[in-house]
Amino acid sequence: MELSSRITNITGGGSDGWDVFYKARRMIAAGTPVTELTIGEHDIRTSLDILGAMYNSALAGNTGYAAIPGSDTLRNAVAERIAARTGVPTSKDNILITPGGQAALFAAHMGVCNQGDKALYVDPYYATYPGTIRGVGAIAQSIVTTPDTNFEPTHAAIAAEAAGAVSLLINTPNNPTGVVYSAETMNGIARACQDHDLWLISDEVYDTQVWQGQHISPCMLPGMAERTLVVGSMSKSHAMTGSRVGWICGPTDAIAHLANLATHTTYGVPGYIQDAAEFALSQGCVTEEAIAAPFRRRRALSMQALAGQNVIRAVPAQGAMYVMLDIRATGLSGDGFANALLDAEHIAVMPGESFGQAAAGHIRVAMTIDDGAYLAALQRLISFAQDQIE
Amino acid sequence: MELSSRITNITGGGSDGWDVFYKARRMIAAGTPVTELTIGEHDIRTSLDILGAMYNSALAGNTGYAAIPGSDTLRNAVAERIAARTGVPTSKDNILITPGGQAALFAAHMGVCNQGDKALYVDPYYATYPGTIRGVGAIAQSIVTTPDTNFEPTHAAIAAEAAGAVSLLINTPNNPTGVVYSAETMNGIARACQDHDLWLISDEVYDTQVWQGQHISPCMLPGMAERTLVVGSMSKSHAMTGSRVGWICGPTDAIAHLANLATHTTYGVPGYIQDAAEFALSQGCVTEEAIAAPFRRRRALSMQALAGQNVIRAVPAQGAMYVMLDIRATGLSGDGFANALLDAEHIAVMPGESFGQAAAGHIRVAMTIDDGAYLAALQRLISFAQDQIE
Repeated sequence: MELSSRITNITGGGSDGWDVFYKARRMIAAGTPVTELTIGEHDIRTSLDILGAMYNSALAGNTGYAAIPGSDTLRNAVAERIAARTGVPTSKDNILITPGGQAALFAAHMGVCNQGDKALYVDPYYATYPGTIRGVGAIAQSIVTTPDTNFEPTHAAIAAEAAGAVSLLINTPNNPTGVVYSAETMNGIARACQDHDLWLISDEVYDTQVWQGQHISPCMLPGMAERTLVVGSMSKSHAMTGSRVGWICGPTDAIAHLANLATHTTYGVPGYIQDAAEFALSQGCVTEEAIAAPFRRRRALSMQALAGQNVIRAVPAQGAMYVMLDIRATGLSGDGFANALLDAEHIAVMPGESFGQAAAGHIRVAMTIDDGAYLAALQRLISFAQDQIE
Repeated sequence: MELSSRITNITGGGSDGWDVFYKARRMIAAGTPVTELTIGEHDIRTSLDILGAMYNSALAGNTGYAAIPGSDTLRNAVAERIAARTGVPTSKDNILITPGGQAALFAAHMGVCNQGDKALYVDPYYATYPGTIRGVGAIAQSIVTTPDTNFEPTHAAIAAEAAGAVSLLINTPNNPTGVVYSAETMNGIARACQDHDLWLISDEVYDTQVWQGQHISPCMLPGMAERTLVVGSMSKSHAMTGSRVGWICGPTDAIAHLANLATHTTYGVPGYIQDAAEFALSQGCVTEEAIAAPFRRRRALSMQALAGQNVIRAVPAQGAMYVMLDIRATGLSGDGFANALLDAEHIAVMPGESFGQAAAGHIRVAMTIDDGAYLAALQRLISFAQDQIE
């Protein structure tokens, strides 16, 4: 029996780029200890007070169908948080609660792309981006960035691909590069979207993890709120990855239609999880900073470890839970380096090639293990790189 | 800014058929007590032991990203349950865990329909069916049934619409009619699917609520497992409506592609909810029967109340948590009757017209309040109907 071309083409053929990750998993399963620096998951679990809020909500009987766009109180809490962070007036009618950031990315593209429309995304990219666009039946077109502009998309690069496109997907603070887009970059993006009448889908799930520079949400820029769908999530900010709760913030008309879509796709988010999220947000930015702190520390450790050597160059690690390292001086590809490092040192990192062609010759290191082990692994990684050129 | 035609057309224009429901909600909000017999939600909450299993799983640290197709243990548990109920060999590779039955319905249609494909569904239908089909960009074509065949679709009726279609969506035990499709009906459906090379999407979320006859899953019929996607859910069987956990059971190749789709749409189901579902399934059919028992009792009360009068004729109430009543003898439409009943008696039921044209002149009564209140409301409803013709 035939399946739709939409779902059989999601990966676009070929490897999904996670070969090193799977190889590491197999080694671990076979009993080899591997230092895992691949995926973006905290080394802490969701806090007990958030889980307690969830359980209390469930015990109180909040186990039936929840309001599909999200509870009024959580929508209000998210709106208030966004208004406080951006200065842009935001109400619950601008907010749709989704079962996680990925569901928000999918819904946003469902909402703005028709079958066959061209939708833009920036290379390097988070693993699901092109598949999300193909999954809604649109044509995924990358804007390829370069290391010398810190992988930030320029106005010219966007404009060159914008003809016939309906949307542009960006991510700042960026996964995989760790770059926080500059004001100049954001202005260029905004101008390109207005020049070419593009929707901007802005994935801001790392917005609490900024080490350098300032996170600018595009909805803050003149004329952009009406054409921007912001994707947010509790996953990274509150170590709630497994709870699958996020949101889309956008114009009220778009949110109303996206809520209708949600009635036909997910039928809402568990009420007790929404209550847990609301509790977590009510704890304010001190909690968010505490969750972000280990990555801030490890980013500083990374800079120390990388100082005084020239083999590995770090892409400016300005935000998110990763450092992206340029290992081209070793003469290896990102893929070759990651495989050799895994074989020789039992350290697993992601090849840059897993995130598109722009990050070839790079590796992404997730700062997701405790400080001492992280520093030791990074030092071994640097020695390994040095060994390649001696 | 323009939204995709896919999402702006989901409801197909016009009322969503829930006017009486909203009117009842407004009356309740304004302080008028209303007997609510509209929606399919249990009058009990999720059991404390299931919630305890969930909390324990979360406390044990199962709060990170879960395996996207579902945990192996839950997939195995669902596969075993299906194998036990149908006799069809089923493994975890036939199972994708989804965030609820609606997400499964959506994914199934995403998986088999390309943009512009014709997808069939049976009228009367559960409220989201045509919107789900339109939401994936397919063309929703109803198979209109009639009261004199208990709203069961015949082979001839399906065949008449099958040219150019790729799929047929059925639901037995049926919402809204409460009918359990007969063996003859199921054989006719299977023949039509094979004659016209259709995927069969079989929504079986009420499979534990059978009062008369026998539930036949189409995957049990010769040649059907390879073309059938069964949609299941913990919502109705275990009073877990708000927890959003369900599944698709289908051919392994389809499930593999649907898991890939899930990576791009939902990114899996919270691990602690999966563990709660696994615990619930491990309690076996005694638990499922206990959850179903109130509806079995109220169905018997309905038959008693309706005996000895001729104004209201019951559609055979063979399963699910509803009775569908033919009120055409009153001279009113289902909509007219439901509105008048709400105004006069403060009893809220769903007009048949909310579920398509086939159920015009009918009302759907959800048996979702305690036995005494339910019987009293039904008696008042019958008296009200009798008053209309005197």
